[in-house]
This record gives sequence, C-alpha cells and structure tokens, in this order.
Amino acid sequence: MPRPKRGGAAAKRRGRPTATIAQLPAGQRQNPYPPVEIISADQVEAIHHASLDVLQRIGVNFLLDEAREMLAAAGAEIDGQRVRFDRAMVAQHIKSVPPIFTLHGRNPAWQRRFGKNYINFGTVASPPHVTDLDRGRRTGNFEDYCQLLRLGQALNICDIVSGYPVEAVDIAPAVRHLETLRAAAKLTDKNLFGYSLGRQRIRDAIEIARLARGIDHDTLRREPSMFTVVNANSPLQYDGPMLIGVIECARMNQPVVFTPFTLAGAMAPITVAGALVQQNAEALAGITFAQIVNPGAPVVYGSFTSNVDMKSGAPAFGTPEYVKATLISGQLARRYNFPFRASNANASNAPDVQSAYESMMSIWPCVQAHCNVVMHGLGWLEGGLTASYEKMVIDAELLQMMAAFLEPIDISPEAFGIDAMEEVGPGGHFFGSAHTLARYETAFYAPLISDWRNFETWAEAGAVDATARAQQTYKQLLAEYQQPAMDPAAEEALDDFVDRRIAEGGAVGE
Amino acid sequence: MPRPKRGGAAAKRRGRPTATIAQLPAGQRQNPYPPVEIISADQVEAIHHASLDVLQRIGVNFLLDEAREMLAAAGAEIDGQRVRFDRAMVAQHIKSVPPIFTLHGRNPAWQRRFGKNYINFGTVASPPHVTDLDRGRRTGNFEDYCQLLRLGQALNICDIVSGYPVEAVDIAPAVRHLETLRAAAKLTDKNLFGYSLGRQRIRDAIEIARLARGIDHDTLRREPSMFTVVNANSPLQYDGPMLIGVIECARMNQPVVFTPFTLAGAMAPITVAGALVQQNAEALAGITFAQIVNPGAPVVYGSFTSNVDMKSGAPAFGTPEYVKATLISGQLARRYNFPFRASNANASNAPDVQSAYESMMSIWPCVQAHCNVVMHGLGWLEGGLTASYEKMVIDAELLQMMAAFLEPIDISPEAFGIDAMEEVGPGGHFFGSAHTLARYETAFYAPLISDWRNFETWAEAGAVDATARAQQTYKQLLAEYQQPAMDPAAEEALDDFVDRRIAEGGAVGE
Repeated sequence: MPRPKRGGAAAKRRGRPTATIAQLPAGQRQNPYPPVEIISADQVEAIHHASLDVLQRIGVNFLLDEAREMLAAAGAEIDGQRVRFDRAMVAQHIKSVPPIFTLHGRNPAWQRRFGKNYINFGTVASPPHVTDLDRGRRTGNFEDYCQLLRLGQALNICDIVSGYPVEAVDIAPAVRHLETLRAAAKLTDKNLFGYSLGRQRIRDAIEIARLARGIDHDTLRREPSMFTVVNANSPLQYDGPMLIGVIECARMNQPVVFTPFTLAGAMAPITVAGALVQQNAEALAGITFAQIVNPGAPVVYGSFTSNVDMKSGAPAFGTPEYVKATLISGQLARRYNFPFRASNANASNAPDVQSAYESMMSIWPCVQAHCNVVMHGLGWLEGGLTASYEKMVIDAELLQMMAAFLEPIDISPEAFGIDAMEEVGPGGHFFGSAHTLARYETAFYAPLISDWRNFETWAEAGAVDATARAQQTYKQLLAEYQQPAMDPAAEEALDDFVDRRIAEGGAVGE
Repeated sequence: MPRPKRGGAAAKRRGRPTATIAQLPAGQRQNPYPPVEIISADQVEAIHHASLDVLQRIGVNFLLDEAREMLAAAGAEIDGQRVRFDRAMVAQHIKSVPPIFTLHGRNPAWQRRFGKNYINFGTVASPPHVTDLDRGRRTGNFEDYCQLLRLGQALNICDIVSGYPVEAVDIAPAVRHLETLRAAAKLTDKNLFGYSLGRQRIRDAIEIARLARGIDHDTLRREPSMFTVVNANSPLQYDGPMLIGVIECARMNQPVVFTPFTLAGAMAPITVAGALVQQNAEALAGITFAQIVNPGAPVVYGSFTSNVDMKSGAPAFGTPEYVKATLISGQLARRYNFPFRASNANASNAPDVQSAYESMMSIWPCVQAHCNVVMHGLGWLEGGLTASYEKMVIDAELLQMMAAFLEPIDISPEAFGIDAMEEVGPGGHFFGSAHTLARYETAFYAPLISDWRNFETWAEAGAVDATARAQQTYKQLLAEYQQPAMDPAAEEALDDFVDRRIAEGGAVGE
C-alpha cells in the first residue's frame, strides 16, 4: 500500500531555516481596488431575471430521488427528474447564504477568508496527465501526485491544495480518495478539498479533514475544514454523486462551490450572455438546494464559462469571451452577495507563450472580478488535461505579481521624495540618495523566474529561457521542501482511519 | 543608395484580395468600459500638487537658449539652465491643450483619434538590434527595417508605424532619417512618426509626412499627419534636440508625446508615487512649453514609469510597479483632460514565456487606463533593445485579444437564447441549435497563433510551440504583404525631396 515517503534527506533538513528561493510571504491577500464592472446594473438584472425565467419555465434535472424529495418539500415543482423553481422560492432560499466564511487548514497560518475582497489561490485539480520538460507527458500517478503536493506546499502563493493536482491512476479507484487525501493531509498543511464522487468518498474526505485538524464534530461544523466543487452537468442538470456531495457537505457545514460547466456553443448557448444566463440559472438551482439542505451552509458561486473553438469543438480558455464572462460573473456574484470562484485556465499543449498569455487573460479578470478563490491557479495545461511542473512555477510568478499589484500604494509626502529630487538635481541619479538607500531592499517585487540581466550576460549564462528557468526553480523547491510537522495523535488517528477504511475496501456501492 | 524594393512577386499579387491569415478587421477601436482607477481623487490631487511644488521649488533644466527665452517671456523664472514654473503659470497654459485630436495617415482608412476612450497601437520603435529564430540577434539594418515595416503594414491591429521598428545602422546617420522615412511612407500607408533629433531631421520628417499625403502646408497645420516623442532626460531635464522637436512640431500643429523616462530607483525616486510626481512635473513642464510655443498645439501625456532591478540596475518592465504606475498615469492624464500614451514593454531576452507575461502586465493597464496610444505595441524585447519578428506576431495576438475584449457585449433577450435552452433541454448540446447556427461563424475571437487542438493532434503535427507558430505566421504575412498603392504625383514629389536632401548631405549642423 503506497504511502507518501517522508523523504530521508528532506526530513533531515527539516530544522533548516527558510528556503533559499525568495518568495512573497504567505498570508491572507485582499484586493484593495474597486471591482471591474463591464455591464450596467440594469444588464445584471436582465441576466438575473432571464435565469429565473429559465428556472421557472425549463427547470433543471436533479438526478437523485433524495434531492428531488427535499426540493418538493420546499415547494419546487417536480416533473419526473425535472425540477422547476418559482422565482419567490429561489429569492427566499438564497437569502440564507453567508456572504463570507473562513476555511481552516490544519495549520492555522493557512486560515483563509472567502467573500468580500479576499482572494485565495489553489493548485490545478483533476488532470489525468502530468508533464515536465525532462520526462514529457505521462498518465497521472501517486508519485507525481505527491511531488505536486510538495510543490504546492512549498509555494507561499498557494493557499489551497484544491483537489488532486494530478489523478493518481495507479491507485485503485475504490481507495484512491483515501490514499491521496492522507498524503495531502500529511505532505501539506494547507486547506483541503474533497471530491463529490459518491457518499462514502465525500464522507471520508470530511472525516480526514476533521482528523487532520484533531477536532471534534461540533468544531468541524463551526469551522469549515475542507470544501468540494459541484459541477452542473450542463446544460441544466445535476447528477447523483454531485448532489450527494451537496447534501453531505452542507449538512456538515463544509463549503460547496457550485460551478456550472457552461462552454458557450457546446453545453450552453453560443453567446456569452446566453451562457451566463444558463450558468446563473444552474448556480442558483444548486445554491437554492444547498440552502434547503441546511440554511446558512457556506456556498460559493462558481464561474467556468468559456467558449469552444467552433472549428473543432475543443474548449478554449483565456479568450476574450472568457474575460467578459468572468468579469460579469463577478458582478452577478456580488449582486447576490455570494463568495465567488473562477479559474486560471489555458488551452495550450505546452508551457509556452500561449500558456502564459492565456493564463494572464484568465488571472486578470479573476483578480478584477474580486474572485475569492482562483481554482487551478497553479500548474494547469491543455484545458485541464495535464498538470505541468514548470507551469506550477510560471503560474506562481504570475500570481505573485498580481499579489504585489494588490499591495496598496503609498501616496504620502515621504513617498513623493521631493527632497531626494532636490538632492539629486536635474540630470543626476537616485542610486545613492538617502531616500533610495532607506527603501531599496523592499521597494520592488522580486521575481521567481523573470531574468532582467542584459542580453550579453544572459547569453553567456546559457541563454536559458523562462520555461527552463521554471524547471530549475521547481527542482530547487522540491529539493528544499520540508514536510510540515503534524501532531502525532492526529497523525495516528488519521492513519488508523485510513487504514481501516482501506481494509473495508474503500468506496463500495453508492 | 538603398531604396525599399517593391518586391516583384508582391507587386504582382497586389490585385489579389485579402491575405489568407485571418485577422480582426482594421478600424478605430474604443474602450467601452470605465477606466480602472486604483487611487482616490484626493490622492491624484496630492500627486498633482507635489509635482507643482517640484516645478516651483526645484524646476527643470531646459538645455536650449531659444526655449528658455520663450519661457522667460511667458513668465517663468530662469536661473542659468534651470527654469522654475509658477503654479498659476502652469495652470494657465495647460488649459489650451486639446483633449482630443485626429492623426492622418496617407490612407484615410488609418485616420485615428487620440483622446477620450480611443485606443491605438504602434510598432516597437528605436531598438538598435533585431532578432528572429532563424538568424538570431544582429545589429539593426535597412533590410530588416523594411521587413518590419511590411509586417507592421500587414497587421491590421497596428495603427501606427511609430518610429524605426529597428535602427537602420547601415545607413549614414546624416541621411538615415531621409531613407527610412521614405521607406515608411511608401511601404506603409499608416500613421507616421518623426524623431526629434535636431531641427533638420524633424523638419524633414514633417515635410515627408506632408508630401506623402500630397497636401499643402495649411492642410498640414489643420490635419496632424505625423507625431514625435519627446523624452525628458530624467530627472528634470530636457535636452536641445528634443526641445527643437517641440518647437518645430508645435509650430506646425503636429502632435508631441511628452514621455519622461522615470525609472524608479535610477532616474526617479525609488517609490512609485515619487516617480509619478517627477513624471508629472516633467510632463507638465514640457506640455506647458509646447503650449507657449503654440497655444492649442496637440500634445499627449506619456507614461513610461517603471522600476529598475536594484541588484543590477537593469530596467524592468511589466512589473507590478509598472502596472500601478500606468493605471495612475491614466488617472493623472484624465485629471488634466490630456490624451494619454503608455507602452507594451517587457525585459525578456527571448520571445518566451517571460516576454508574454510581462507584455500582458503592460497591455492590461494600458487598456484599462484608457491609454490612447500604446507605443511599442508590437515586437519589443529586451527592454527595447531588440525588435523581434516573432514577438511582432505574438503581440498582435495579445492586442487582438484585447480589441475583442473591448467589443461591447450583447445583453439582449435574443442573445440570452432561452428558446435554445428549451430546445436543447437538460443534458443536451447546442452545436446544432438554430441559435448556434445563426451565430457560429462570428461568435468568438479567432486567434492568430493560439492552438486549441487536443494534445495528440498537436503532437502529431510536430508539437510546434506558440513562438514557432508566430515564426510561421510572420513569414506568411511577409509573403502575402502587398505594398499599398501611392498617388504617383505624391510619390514623385516625395522622391524629389528626399533625393535633393540627400544630395545636400542630409542633416548637417544643428
């Protein structure tokens, strides 16, 4: 039975001070600037009303008897698998959504807020493949899964290990969630995630999050300690395992991120506005259901609206349409006072220029829409089919730059430095001025991989491009990785639970 | 004496329809969204007042007797080369700046507006080196200069050939401006630029712009037909050739872009706020002078504030500090109701991931600050020391994506497509719906180089990365380039003038 290795060398280094790669410090980040809004309040209302029309006229399929029974009891109209929602019913139930909640990793340093202008970043989740420059693309496996966890742990900008950074296909499906969650709970002390893949798996995930923190069930209910993502099976459908995830998480007060998969032209109307109407309808249906399960349960409004390439049907990300959809989704989330999720996505097949500019076309609207959790923040390639070691580091650079942009600017007479200008005088330079010397160590963002040396120096040093520098950096981060200490009692309880559940066969039946 | 070749094959193709590379159509672009503002109106006023303090207390060196005489006559305080400006004097003179003006290329299709929410893109200007993947980095020369002009002409997103896309070092300095401007006027029909490198050169540039359009001097004065950039020799200094450029252009009503070169930590205080105070002081000094020369002359407020790498002193671009400086510069420009210029800059030594993400960190704030002219929009590398063929195309993709983002979104019941959702129903797909079929050809942005095929198809096709695809695209664009037709009388007059000026020896003396 594979277990994450503690790594002899890494363990020996555990007493060492900080890593030698300079990073921005970890911490709760906030966006001090107003959100960017590209449509009017009236237009937001038009989308809102159109989505309520969809819920009333067309409705949404809920592929779980238990869910439809609860919805019927709450006043929804049931017609086979179809559930239609009255406008007043939706308005009534979404009132109980908390506008902000706190997620608790096993290390209190990673406690994070979701709502308002708080922003958090997670790793890539769920790709079936993994790639790096040395070994190329291969099927996901437990060893790469653990290495990507270590890399996520080592990067300060990463707040959340948001699901499997790659699928550990070499672990049997019935026990995969147990082995992988144990590894996540040990190799990282950041915020945890559980997949909604049936009742046993999500219950196991919640229990592992509880045991990792060493808390009782009441504390778990008061302090959300993991979260899940529930995708609508767009258009207008929620499947059984996802709905079970809603029920189990909402009952235990663990957050559910509702993310319709509304690719314009394929699973949603071909217009950005139409895809957003459908996204909004699906999200409201899911959120209404979660509030019926447990009024006040934490939920997040998720946007994943993008478009397909109409020539091939392939999904595209980081497109101009994605920018518009993400910014408007933020406006919709704020209209309801819901926490908001979006993603750092791209469709490139390599950690190349396309992957960088499409990620930038994703990250900018995420930040400016006041996204509270940027899923797939680090490491995603190929529209989510591959996790890339190099892209993890490239994305860490992009996200760190945005975090530095979000640090408020000092507009004070001292910052203006007029005395320094007088001291230096026309035609002089500021390198040696007192104003400079007092500030030069922390004045500017220090990059992870950007190389600002002149061409000659860079060429003499081997003309290493940014992707290859990212490769060097991920290797160094892994070499310097230190497994976070864990309370021995919590670790023992966690191991006992996982070992027992594995002995039981893991997820069997529903 | 080198002359741009008309290119036999290209000339034969001149009758052909459009190029086979699909691009966004050319046209005047506007930003329909509100500008992004990251400091308060009070903070903008604080920077404004601090810069007036600088102008009053420290002043600016004007290294030209003629300029200081004009400034003295207008009431400035002169002390050697130093010029100090009274607050009221600045306020009085900047009142006459036109908030918007129109630039006229020789083809009316390229007529462009500068001011309000109009946005225009220019090529890289002035690098001494040129590079491409085949041949590597080399000293700038006339042949590459012409090829980059052709590429700029071929790219619809490029509105302006904004200076030499690379320096033609193989042409003697005294006649370089004549040969290069003749080539620009013939190989492109877009908006022209002249360097402020002494009286004869800028006068020749203005005359070439006039002759290329075949207009008289009165029309030239009414219709700006070229523009120049005047950089402060920061800190707080304008040199003689630049000031001559101001005098000559302002007298002929040709626009002057005032761009202080305020690299925080080197030529400006180490704080973003301090660098902006100095930028604002320098820009106001230059703009005040231009309005003294000719009240109402068109000018542009230019921002180039970035930071240096404090370890090496090397300039950095596309940094978080650059983002802040650019957005706040837009706020300052709007405070005065000035047209606004910024740049698409990066400090990478290769057309790699760094060049893409730093460019994105430049382009986003340019667009969101309501920049009217994005200089160095296409092709710049190495902090402006090299022009890259591949980066020209990569940047065209980035700028096209932003242009598509700026196309207003359709928020109408027809766009919502609720009938299509009903037709498709839960779990279906929209590929064949009437709503899709009516829109699929133009629904989404079609990229220049982004490859959205799945990994297997992409790998079978050679696993060509985005930079290599940009190489293929620039070659195809050059192969498809068609020299724009020119009025024979205008061409003859242009040739006569340039030949005569070359026979005279070009720029001799001042």
